[in-house]
This record gives sequence, C-alpha cells and structure tokens, in this order.
Amino acid sequence: MGRVESACATLAAIRENSPLVHNMTNIVVANTTANALLAIGASPAMVDSPEEAPELARVAGALVVNVGTVTPLQAEAMKLATAAAHKAGRPWALDPVAVGALTFRTKLANELLENKPSVIRGNASEIMALAGQGSGGKGVDSTDSSEAALAGAIELAKRTGAVVVVSGPVDFITDGTRTAEVANGDAMMPYVTGLGCTATALIGATLAVCDDPFYAAIHAMVYLGVVGEITAKTTEGPASLQQDIINGLYYLSGDHIKETARVEMHETVV
Amino acid sequence: MGRVESACATLAAIRENSPLVHNMTNIVVANTTANALLAIGASPAMVDSPEEAPELARVAGALVVNVGTVTPLQAEAMKLATAAAHKAGRPWALDPVAVGALTFRTKLANELLENKPSVIRGNASEIMALAGQGSGGKGVDSTDSSEAALAGAIELAKRTGAVVVVSGPVDFITDGTRTAEVANGDAMMPYVTGLGCTATALIGATLAVCDDPFYAAIHAMVYLGVVGEITAKTTEGPASLQQDIINGLYYLSGDHIKETARVEMHETVV
Amino acid sequence: MGRVESACATLAAIRENSPLVHNMTNIVVANTTANALLAIGASPAMVDSPEEAPELARVAGALVVNVGTVTPLQAEAMKLATAAAHKAGRPWALDPVAVGALTFRTKLANELLENKPSVIRGNASEIMALAGQGSGGKGVDSTDSSEAALAGAIELAKRTGAVVVVSGPVDFITDGTRTAEVANGDAMMPYVTGLGCTATALIGATLAVCDDPFYAAIHAMVYLGVVGEITAKTTEGPASLQQDIINGLYYLSGDHIKETARVEMHETVV
Repeated sequence: MGRVESACATLAAIRENSPLVHNMTNIVVANTTANALLAIGASPAMVDSPEEAPELARVAGALVVNVGTVTPLQAEAMKLATAAAHKAGRPWALDPVAVGALTFRTKLANELLENKPSVIRGNASEIMALAGQGSGGKGVDSTDSSEAALAGAIELAKRTGAVVVVSGPVDFITDGTRTAEVANGDAMMPYVTGLGCTATALIGATLAVCDDPFYAAIHAMVYLGVVGEITAKTTEGPASLQQDIINGLYYLSGDHIKETARVEMHETVV
Repeated sequence: MGRVESACATLAAIRENSPLVHNMTNIVVANTTANALLAIGASPAMVDSPEEAPELARVAGALVVNVGTVTPLQAEAMKLATAAAHKAGRPWALDPVAVGALTFRTKLANELLENKPSVIRGNASEIMALAGQGSGGKGVDSTDSSEAALAGAIELAKRTGAVVVVSGPVDFITDGTRTAEVANGDAMMPYVTGLGCTATALIGATLAVCDDPFYAAIHAMVYLGVVGEITAKTTEGPASLQQDIINGLYYLSGDHIKETARVEMHETVV
Repeated sequence: MGRVESACATLAAIRENSPLVHNMTNIVVANTTANALLAIGASPAMVDSPEEAPELARVAGALVVNVGTVTPLQAEAMKLATAAAHKAGRPWALDPVAVGALTFRTKLANELLENKPSVIRGNASEIMALAGQGSGGKGVDSTDSSEAALAGAIELAKRTGAVVVVSGPVDFITDGTRTAEVANGDAMMPYVTGLGCTATALIGATLAVCDDPFYAAIHAMVYLGVVGEITAKTTEGPASLQQDIINGLYYLSGDHIKETARVEMHETVV
C-alpha cells in the first residue's frame, strides 16, 4: 500500500473505531482541538488533574500532552499520566509548546521524555531546544527554520526512540532513520492560534489506530496540511480558517488526500 | 398556558430580566457557553475559585456546575458554592460530564447531590452512573441509549428531588412523576464539542426565571433542540454549527418554537 | 502627526515588529484574544503560572493581566509577574473583570496597582469600583454608564499614574489630564463574550510599540471599535461577529481607520 493509500486507510480506521483520545492540553486550544478530533471521527476527552489523568491514560486509545499553559499541578498530572500510559503500553504524543523559551516547561518536557513518547511534534525552535540546540524561540513562535532543526530532530529521535515532527511551511517527520516531508498548508495558517496543537491532537487520533508511529505522524500532518491548503483558498480570514479547517476535517475524503497530498520519503544518512 | 406557549413566556422573561447565571465550568466550553447565554439574553459569569464562587452563588439567579475538567481546587469550590446556593434558596444545575468513567468526579458528583440540585442533565451513561447503573460510557461519550437510561433517571429524580434530563436524539426530562420528551435536534450535533454543556448552561438561564424546574429543563432543551434543528439544515459543518447555534439562540423567536418544537408529556407510572 | 495618522503608524509598527504580548488571562477568552493578537500582527503567549510568568514578563514587549477567572495560584503569579514587569521597565495593562462585584479579585486588583500598570481598562462599574465608587455591577456586566464613571476614572488615573479606559458605547480614555473619546462600535458587541478582554489584549500590542500609553490605549480602542462597527453591518449574529472581528483585525488598514474612526480629544479640567 502506497503512502497516500495508507493515509486514507488510517482515516477510515479512525472513523470506524472512533478511538478515545485523552488530551491534557492548554486553555487556548481546548475547544478547537476537541472539535478537530470530533470532526476527524475520534472521541476526545480533556482530563488533566492528577486524580484522574492516570486512570484515563491507562484505557485511552492514545494520550496527547501539551504544555502550552502548564501549571505545577498539571505538570504533576502529566508525569503520572505519561508514566501510566507507558506502563500500559499506550501510545502518547508530546507537544512541547514554548519549550526552550521558559525554564519550568523545558525541565518538565525533558522529564516527560523518560516515559517514552511515541511522537514529539513542535516547531523548529521547540525541537531544537529539546535536542539541546538553538535559542529557544520567541514565546510560542519559532525563530528558526524547519530545515535548520532537521539534524536536531534526527538526533532527538535516535536518543529518545520517538518519532519527531518539525512543523513549518514544510513539515519534517523522522524516526532517526527514515525521514518524510509533507509540503501542504497555507501561509495564513500561522495566523490561527494553536494549529500546531491541533496537529498534535490529530496525531493522537492516528496513533490510536496505526501501529507505526512514523506513519501515524505523517498521516496526521497530511490531514491538517491538506485541509488547511484546500480551505484557505476560499476562507475569509484567520478566524474563519480556524472554523473552516474543522469543517474540512469533517468532510475530508480519500479523494481530497489523493489529489492534494505532497509527501516525500527519504532514507536518512547522518 | 400550553407547553409551547410557556416556553415562549420563559424566553421572554430571560430577555426581559437578563438573569445573572453563575457558571463553574470546563476549559473546553467556557467561551461557547458564555456566548450561548448572552445570545439567549442572560448575563453569564464564569467564576470557580473557592474564594469567590460561594460569594457569587448566593446572589446569582442560578448556578451551573459542570465537572468536565474538574481539578481538586475547583471541586472544593463546587462543594462550597452549591452549599451556598442551597442555603440561599438559589436553583442550581449539575452537569455530570464523564461521571461513571472516572472515579474522582463520580465521587464528587455524588457528594454534590447532597446540596440538592434543581436539575441534573447528562447523557445516558452519565445519568445511569449517577443512578448506580450502567458501565460508565467511553470518556465523555455515552455508550447507552437514552431510552435505556429512563428508568434510572426516574429513580434518580425520586431519590434526589431533582429534575433529571437524559439528552440524546430524543431528550427525556423527568421529575420522577411527570416525564416529557423533546424530539428536536440534528445528527450533526454530537460532532460539536460540549453542546450538552450548552444545554445545561441554558437550563441555568431558564431556572433563573421559571419557578418549576421541570418546565425550566424542558424549555431549555426545546431552545437548543429547535435552534440546532433549524440551523443544521444550512450549516457548512460542525464548527459552523457551533457558531450557527449561538447566532440562532440570539434570533430565536416564539414563532420558531411554535413551528418546530416537538414535545410530548406523560404521567409516569413506574 | 494627527490622531488618526498616529493610530495608523502604531498599527504599522505592530505588523513590522510582531511584538511578544504576554497574557495572563481567563479561560473564556484565551482563544479569542490569542487570535485577535495574531490577527493584528502581534505574537501572543498565554503563560500564567508562578513558575513561568515572571520569567516571560521580564522579556515580553508588554504584559496583559486579566482577572476574569482568577484562581489563588494565578493571583500569586500575577503579583510576581507585574512586579517583574515593573522592575524591568516593561509596560503592562490591567483588565479588572468583575472587580467590585467579588471581594477576592477587588483586593487583588488593588494590590496589583502597586506595580504601576501603564493602562487599566474596564467597564464603568469596574472602573468606579477601583476608584472607590459605585455599586460593583452585576457579575461581569456594568450597571453604570461610562459617563458616570469618568470622574472616577480621572481620579484613578491621577492616583495611580495609569491611563484609564472606561469602555462602553463611547469609550473614555484619560491620563488624568488629557481625555479622549472613541465613539465607534456597534450595539451587538456586548452580546459577544469578552470583547472588553480583547480590547485590553490589543492595548498590550499597542503598548509594546508605542511610547505614550495614552495614545496606545486610544489606538487599540480605535482598532476594535472600527473593526466592530464595520463588520457588524454584515454579520449574521453575535457568534459570527466574534469571528468577523478577528478576521477584520487581520485585514484592518489605514484607510479603514481614516474613514471610520471617531476620536475626540479634551484637555481635562477637574
């Protein structure tokens, strides 16, 4: 099965199984990521207290951990929940929002790596910071190019065993050996808050139905990139685009993917 | 006054009095429920710390307690605020999101029942869990039918004195003796996150102006069902529907209700 | 440079410099204010834990503190972050949501004044409460007119050194000596939750690029008022207006401002 066909198969599996995706996320994107997950066909649950998160993480199809507005209590819950997911053999994805720019969450994200995320998705500055490189970005926005972060991403993947995604105008996905590029999207997308968080949430949905985290990550980036690219053509502005992307995920079909996806694969030699 | 006419009278009373509705709610729906309450004509306030919630609960027209993303601190505030509302004779509504699926909030919801909610609204799995039945659902989504939950709802109403609403394709509303069915809505509505939370928020508005919680609950379910049914006909997808429903609540008229509402009443014999 | 020309220059400076605006805000508007700041051209970061907020406040272009859903932990972070901003010479804006109506946040807001906000923006009841007058409003909604609050606003500005904005159908902006009126907007705007919070967030963006907080506040109120007034003419309801305003901020041009802004300036004699 080709790359694009397998993206279609993963989408069909999400819609057939409606996997429970457990999100520990930030106050900015809680609504939009829940809606994006419903639209793609998953069953989202937003649960992030220490009393509850480990209980849910053990039974969910996948866990998504996003440190965007992390508090000390939520950090404690993230440690417990990722440990529970790891112990139960459940896949989980890490979104290291603003890691590198802020000390507390940088330390936290590094601690969470011990619980073996299946996928890490960030912008170039965030991934370089986790890889021990770079300057840390400006707040939540990247100040580095995705290309510049690729070497760090490969190193981070090798060190942690996670698939690493550097999102940007072109998304790079690597497991340390294989690397893929997804070249979909639109220049208006960075004007919508938290579409990176939406990407990581969608990775939660693909991880829940797809055994290979490398393909799970590619497929989710394809879904968001394809839908963003298609809907941006007719959108009325960035707030409309936030809405249009969720509508688009609901109507996303195999034909959309086949006609629009631009994916390239490489064996990495580093 | 007939059932539909009284729903129109309650709507007019909300718009005339603009009741203060105090919400202790989750990070997913804070924006959409505040906007839904403004659209229907109420004055929402989102306040959920232990230092403030009891103070507001004593003076608000009604209190809405939603455990969707409950933390231990918020749980403490919920106990204090519902006790304050009960003591002050203020009506309050409970939304037991994911009760049955998670231990902490199941225990919390049962403790909150001691402060005598006027209305409890949940999906079938949540109501069955509160009634001591059922399997608890999958995360926040129901795995049981509303019909299956009706016997438990009647029992829960009798035991607690609350009006109990089981929402689904057909909504059941019971005070243990009387039962009503509201058969409005659209199949796309479950693809919008938190419309159940919106229903409970609207119950807060109707409770604030309507002396009989049984009718307050029916009317709120009618408003949401009618608006959802009308706006879904022309919506562009689930994210648009979230927006269209709020717009629709703003423009909701007595004529919309009279033309579209499908309400049936039964004396219950159990 | 005239008043309107300087508003255009400030807008151009935001878009050229994309200033980092640090927000400590509430769960209702976190998404919409982040999107509004992105749309106007700024780089928002939502960070509100005691461990992180002071670190970011020292380096951000401006800080915005909004007590809308304040918790004790967030209150502690607000004290630390505003002290850090003040010490580092960074401008910050205070949004005293529901101050006067609730004891905890009223005390907090008064403590935060010691860290010398550059701008305070509230509705009439909130400003009167901070000025030690008035009845405190109903929840988050004002029960007083902006005109009634003007004397209190001037006194508050003189006492604290902050520019004070009373927003309403006509917005009043005063530094205690100079007073301006911005008479833009639309009657539907109060039906959108948190547009006042959006105004304060935009003040964060203007403060980051504009040396005089009096003009920074005027310009932000002009942007929101002009965009609200233009987009309300064709909007489909309050939820659409929330979205249309963010789209409108993205497309806001100098011509829109020149054609639509209604600003009057007065030397105040009190």
